[in-house]
Amino acid sequence: MNVLPLALIFLAAGAPEQVRAVLRAQADAWNRGDIRGFMRGYENSAETTYIGSAVVKGYQAILDNYRKRFADRTAMGQLAFDGIEVRQVSADVAIATGEFHLRREARAGGEASGRFTLVLRRGAGGAWRIIHDHTSAAAPASRREK
Amino acid sequence: MNVLPLALIFLAAGAPEQVRAVLRAQADAWNRGDIRGFMRGYENSAETTYIGSAVVKGYQAILDNYRKRFADRTAMGQLAFDGIEVRQVSADVAIATGEFHLRREARAGGEASGRFTLVLRRGAGGAWRIIHDHTSAAAPASRREK
Repeated sequence: MNVLPLALIFLAAGAPEQVRAVLRAQADAWNRGDIRGFMRGYENSAETTYIGSAVVKGYQAILDNYRKRFADRTAMGQLAFDGIEVRQVSADVAIATGEFHLRREARAGGEASGRFTLVLRRGAGGAWRIIHDHTSAAAPASRREK
Repeated sequence: MNVLPLALIFLAAGAPEQVRAVLRAQADAWNRGDIRGFMRGYENSAETTYIGSAVVKGYQAILDNYRKRFADRTAMGQLAFDGIEVRQVSADVAIATGEFHLRREARAGGEASGRFTLVLRRGAGGAWRIIHDHTSAAAPASRREK
């Protein structure tokens, strides 16, 4: 039986597979209630930016914002990404787009979904990290434009 | 009087200034009702993508989508960008973020505003063009989440 160490498989994978692995690790961390683990998908830099209902600048501010909005596992719910597409746009920059779905109890805010654009950069160590995140929530069905 | 040809000024400008010039040209084109001119800000490629209330792929589909949503100058209204920030993330890739504001008669859909993330790439000819656009409309005040 050939069993490659995981690190080797990771190194052998192309950029799109590596980016997908970053997103999978984020969803896994989220779903065990580990916001710090989720944040490892982002570049730990004061320049990292998040655009959602507000604009948030810097890794620490993004972490604080997630912690404020998702104070416990009930508020975090269960996160899934789908329809992920990855486009490498230069040697060390890629764009990942897709949809997020948050399953959550009504008392914790209910279901949420929407679309995201992530810009990722491959750092000196070879790891892809999110340097910019633009996430737009879909309007709840009752509020959706005609 | 020293008058530099515009092309020289353009070549001398740094990437952020060049990207800002692309956005300025887009708003100017929009405000004279010239959607084709506005579209010159985008890379003419089947890979160019737009994420708004829908996902649109390819330059032609993005043009068709704008034409459908903004059939005439009344529907187009007057477009302004503000709060533009440009971050160059590799030699030939930059991210531009900011807000858009559309002033428009109520009968043509009324005012609209929101945030955008543009990923731009510098092509072989040296021009920066949008290769991905994620634009999220702010909910009208009456529909905004508490």
